Amino acid sequence: MDVRQISEEVTARTKVDTTARDVEKVISCLSSSSHFWEIVCNAQKPFSVVAEIINALWERGFVSIEPNGEIAITQKGQEFIKEVSIAPRRDFTCPSCDGRGIAMDKIREWMQKFDELTVDRPKAIADYDQGYITTPTVMARVALMAERGDLEGKRLLVLGDDDLLSLAAAITKMPREIVVLEIDERLVDYINDRAQKLNLPVKAFKYDFRDSLPDQFVGSFDTFNTDPPETMEALEVCMTRGLSALSGEGCAGYFGLTRTESSLKKWNEFQQMLLSKFRVAITDIIDNFNHYVNWDYLLGSIRDDYSFIQVKPRLNWYRSSMYRIETVSGFGRIENKPMPCELYVDEEALIYKPEKTLTKA
Amino acid sequence: MDVRQISEEVTARTKVDTTARDVEKVISCLSSSSHFWEIVCNAQKPFSVVAEIINALWERGFVSIEPNGEIAITQKGQEFIKEVSIAPRRDFTCPSCDGRGIAMDKIREWMQKFDELTVDRPKAIADYDQGYITTPTVMARVALMAERGDLEGKRLLVLGDDDLLSLAAAITKMPREIVVLEIDERLVDYINDRAQKLNLPVKAFKYDFRDSLPDQFVGSFDTFNTDPPETMEALEVCMTRGLSALSGEGCAGYFGLTRTESSLKKWNEFQQMLLSKFRVAITDIIDNFNHYVNWDYLLGSIRDDYSFIQVKPRLNWYRSSMYRIETVSGFGRIENKPMPCELYVDEEALIYKPEKTLTKA
Repeated sequence: MDVRQISEEVTARTKVDTTARDVEKVISCLSSSSHFWEIVCNAQKPFSVVAEIINALWERGFVSIEPNGEIAITQKGQEFIKEVSIAPRRDFTCPSCDGRGIAMDKIREWMQKFDELTVDRPKAIADYDQGYITTPTVMARVALMAERGDLEGKRLLVLGDDDLLSLAAAITKMPREIVVLEIDERLVDYINDRAQKLNLPVKAFKYDFRDSLPDQFVGSFDTFNTDPPETMEALEVCMTRGLSALSGEGCAGYFGLTRTESSLKKWNEFQQMLLSKFRVAITDIIDNFNHYVNWDYLLGSIRDDYSFIQVKPRLNWYRSSMYRIETVSGFGRIENKPMPCELYVDEEALIYKPEKTLTKA
Repeated sequence: MDVRQISEEVTARTKVDTTARDVEKVISCLSSSSHFWEIVCNAQKPFSVVAEIINALWERGFVSIEPNGEIAITQKGQEFIKEVSIAPRRDFTCPSCDGRGIAMDKIREWMQKFDELTVDRPKAIADYDQGYITTPTVMARVALMAERGDLEGKRLLVLGDDDLLSLAAAITKMPREIVVLEIDERLVDYINDRAQKLNLPVKAFKYDFRDSLPDQFVGSFDTFNTDPPETMEALEVCMTRGLSALSGEGCAGYFGLTRTESSLKKWNEFQQMLLSKFRVAITDIIDNFNHYVNWDYLLGSIRDDYSFIQVKPRLNWYRSSMYRIETVSGFGRIENKPMPCELYVDEEALIYKPEKTLTKA
């Protein structure tokens, strides 16, 4: 057998271009973990690609699936790995900052405050494809904004906020004003309630980003933050709204983008769209910066045809890269009109079974 | 006075687009340091822009220049900063990894070996715009490659190697083969000598990247590494050579890009060129990853009209962001022909005085 043959099979099954090196990467991750969700996390390939590669290896007798869903490399698999000399995955992540590059000691007090403030936060629900980032992630994100000069004394727009980043930013007392635009009324109410009780400069409004940005928010912020759904259409709409809200040159946008719902081919398309359509530069892409808290509805919504997938994740497996973009000279007005679009479903973003696919939002 | 007015003045003097926010950023850095090179390092704006902003502030009496070249904010300056509420720069850099995200404990032994191996390394010389990265930088860069699966068992091309990254990579015993292409014969000889004495799988050849890539290297590597000169032309030539050397989809390129010699406007142009011309995605941009050892010829070559510049740097001030790019599906053959180009001189890359400008390479 040949990794190229597997890659072709997986491409046919998933409709996501899969290369021989993608197969090697998954095998490399299998050599250092037997837990499906850890392999997905480390392989940094679309979910369905990782699942089908593992299945293809199982069909060839290179891995076996234990009764508990763990994935073990067989004797035959070991021999193959040796033959084609695929090295096990190496990990050099800084243990102090989890690779984010942010000093944890400087944000620990804020983390504690954030946890206290949000102890009764709304649960992530499937209706809007929710899933929020961990406390170290949200505070590190705020610290990153502060370090880059995008927070203190600035006006911040948060576009979608199940992460409660607005409250995390407010805790630092740095921003002048924070506006949240969010589709989920539970979150709008929750954020406004917390802000009022603690006298924080945060205001949340109900908003569906497919609608045009309300006039009073156009061109009036220094910084935006968002975590877009990852179809190309949704990415474009999200960037259009965020950038429409910025006041000119030298402003910044922050958002996460995964490798689990977006192949690097989609990254290439997204980056091309971003740079050709808007006057921005990508200043930072920080791998694995954003860790998401596991959400309750995962196993109930996800495919159940492979037993190795129906396993409770034992780590915060869903991660994304932290992007920062900055507007450059020549940045100007952006067309602000309604943009109907498919938010959640494409071949790569499809984690859930079709019938469970989220269409309410 | 008004920051916008200063930004217009600086744009006229430097021919580099400078925004009001750029001026604010430099003022923010002045609030946390009085040392010119630290301000340049933190402001992340082109060298000449920072110099002219400081001069414009001095002309207005907002800063004074001490006899030792230190830059102090005057009473008038303090009042102004308060009036327009510019916050001092904040620093949240992880002290364990210097913000690189790489576990230093895992690379310390390699660092020691590298220092021993290269104790008599050739000095950086002006002829080829040299200036090499620190030992923690070079070993962290190698670790990053290893973590991303781009080093172990792979063929690595190093395009220009005053950093001696080839030897650093060889120390880990991970790469299958390393080829260095370098214009400076001192370095070619030094690397070959070290490699031979220690039986390392490294071979260095003399090469000017304006010439087409020798046939035997086309399409034959998994990974390339380079540190391009930062005119747009040189960036394009460098990417063309590096990518021509890669063998297909899923291969990677590593290189540094500064904010000191390239404005974000140039970053935007460079990123657009990269993504539209080649089938790659940018997977990582790690801010301030690369620190360069101060080079002897700096103060002798640099402008001497402002006394605050003619000060010996007390930190490794010259830094760059670490880029990683990956080839995606559809990546194919790239035209490989001679590309004569301006390597060192444009408005932004111009650190040195015109008459000292490097033209030999």
